[in-house]
Amino acid sequence: MNNIFVRNNVKIIGEGEKVIIFGHGFGCDQNMWRFITPHFEKEFRLVLFDYVGSGKSDLTAYNREKYSNLHGYKTDLLEIIEALNVEKVIFIGHSVSSMIGMLASIERPECFESLIMIGPSPRYLNDENGYSGGFDERDVIELLNMMEMNFIGWASYLAPIAMNNPDQPMLSQELEASFCSTDPVITRQFAEATFFSDHREDLLKATVPSLILQCAEDSIVPVEVGEYLHRYLKNSTFRMMEAKGHYPHLSHPEETTRFIKEYLSFF
Amino acid sequence: MNNIFVRNNVKIIGEGEKVIIFGHGFGCDQNMWRFITPHFEKEFRLVLFDYVGSGKSDLTAYNREKYSNLHGYKTDLLEIIEALNVEKVIFIGHSVSSMIGMLASIERPECFESLIMIGPSPRYLNDENGYSGGFDERDVIELLNMMEMNFIGWASYLAPIAMNNPDQPMLSQELEASFCSTDPVITRQFAEATFFSDHREDLLKATVPSLILQCAEDSIVPVEVGEYLHRYLKNSTFRMMEAKGHYPHLSHPEETTRFIKEYLSFF
Repeated sequence: MNNIFVRNNVKIIGEGEKVIIFGHGFGCDQNMWRFITPHFEKEFRLVLFDYVGSGKSDLTAYNREKYSNLHGYKTDLLEIIEALNVEKVIFIGHSVSSMIGMLASIERPECFESLIMIGPSPRYLNDENGYSGGFDERDVIELLNMMEMNFIGWASYLAPIAMNNPDQPMLSQELEASFCSTDPVITRQFAEATFFSDHREDLLKATVPSLILQCAEDSIVPVEVGEYLHRYLKNSTFRMMEAKGHYPHLSHPEETTRFIKEYLSFF
Repeated sequence: MNNIFVRNNVKIIGEGEKVIIFGHGFGCDQNMWRFITPHFEKEFRLVLFDYVGSGKSDLTAYNREKYSNLHGYKTDLLEIIEALNVEKVIFIGHSVSSMIGMLASIERPECFESLIMIGPSPRYLNDENGYSGGFDERDVIELLNMMEMNFIGWASYLAPIAMNNPDQPMLSQELEASFCSTDPVITRQFAEATFFSDHREDLLKATVPSLILQCAEDSIVPVEVGEYLHRYLKNSTFRMMEAKGHYPHLSHPEETTRFIKEYLSFF
């Protein structure tokens, strides 16, 4: 098997001319797309994968330096697209994957028809100039320390907050289990790469049409961040979801699907 | 998408280091493997595809000349393997796919770890020198004429005979529907390419280890044909199945799986 397919545990399902690639978020894997893919597999060819260090990717491919920032993940995404030899893809990214997809689209705009961003953020930290990313640096450092000291405790603390759908406790449990199933060192480094990323300047370089799906009561990405993205991202469409929490593709798959289909119908 | 993946409607599922490629038989498609794949997808990476003209392949890729014999299909199989960039595959072929896989393994032996042949035949016609393939030439010509004159009638005639599991009438119906869902002209030409093929001399050129799964009461491939194959095919293992009919992967998936797993455990 193409070592890229093995490295990123690439799956290809569905039927159709157009290709959708799904990029999962931090602490997740391709399995998180299972409520969404059935709505698209009759019309699109779907590509699922796990980032190196996540899911059933090849852990031996992990490289501390390469994955110290989002560009390492971006390179892998572009290699997957290259290995598929696909002309133009629709990329659906959750959370940090939105920025990974955007970075990939800046490097190879010709490969992307559109980007669909679920809960994206160009910077998670607040800064001294009034930008409000939602997190103070010391909160993030505390989270990272907790990951190092008590990984299981961190997972059971963060999962219900990030999911924020107490009426669906199975989803918090699933997220917690997903966090716990990963390698703590790799996951902590992915958290660092995510939470300390700052791609606000890159927004101006992006040209591929994009849809920003902003969740309500998202404890990871405040509404202002989605609005900020929309302001600086050329060709972006902003949609406010009724879905609460940071995982609408799990908690509110119907609404997520509806917004994606509505957007894709423009192309 | 790689045009080979689209052309042959390639799917990749499952997890594991080793790769199994499944080749369907005449008048079938990749969906026919659905009872077998669940037994392998936890341990192997599985590749499914449809031959051009079958299933959801790209019909515009059909070329009368190219597919007038099995070498056209063999070329496509090798292109799929190349597009996957896989080092060594296990190829599981049903019926005519067994010979397509064998021809591919003769051309590129380094690509194949083993061949598993379900109901294979190197020649379907009897000949004047005492070879008993099971069909007289005039019977095949009659079948081909019937396909031209009355395709639906041909499908409803052949399906229950080939399936030969009257206690599972749904399977005959499925096979009949599968026959009928194809393009009559293409299917007739695939029948011609299959039934007039003679790869007895190629058997001597094959080197890749192979498993011959011979069905009981197979109206398409008599036991003598499986034994003939075993005699001339170096490194072959012969297993007589209890399964009746020509589609054990549909009618007797447990036994089929057991024989395949037993064989693969040797490697």
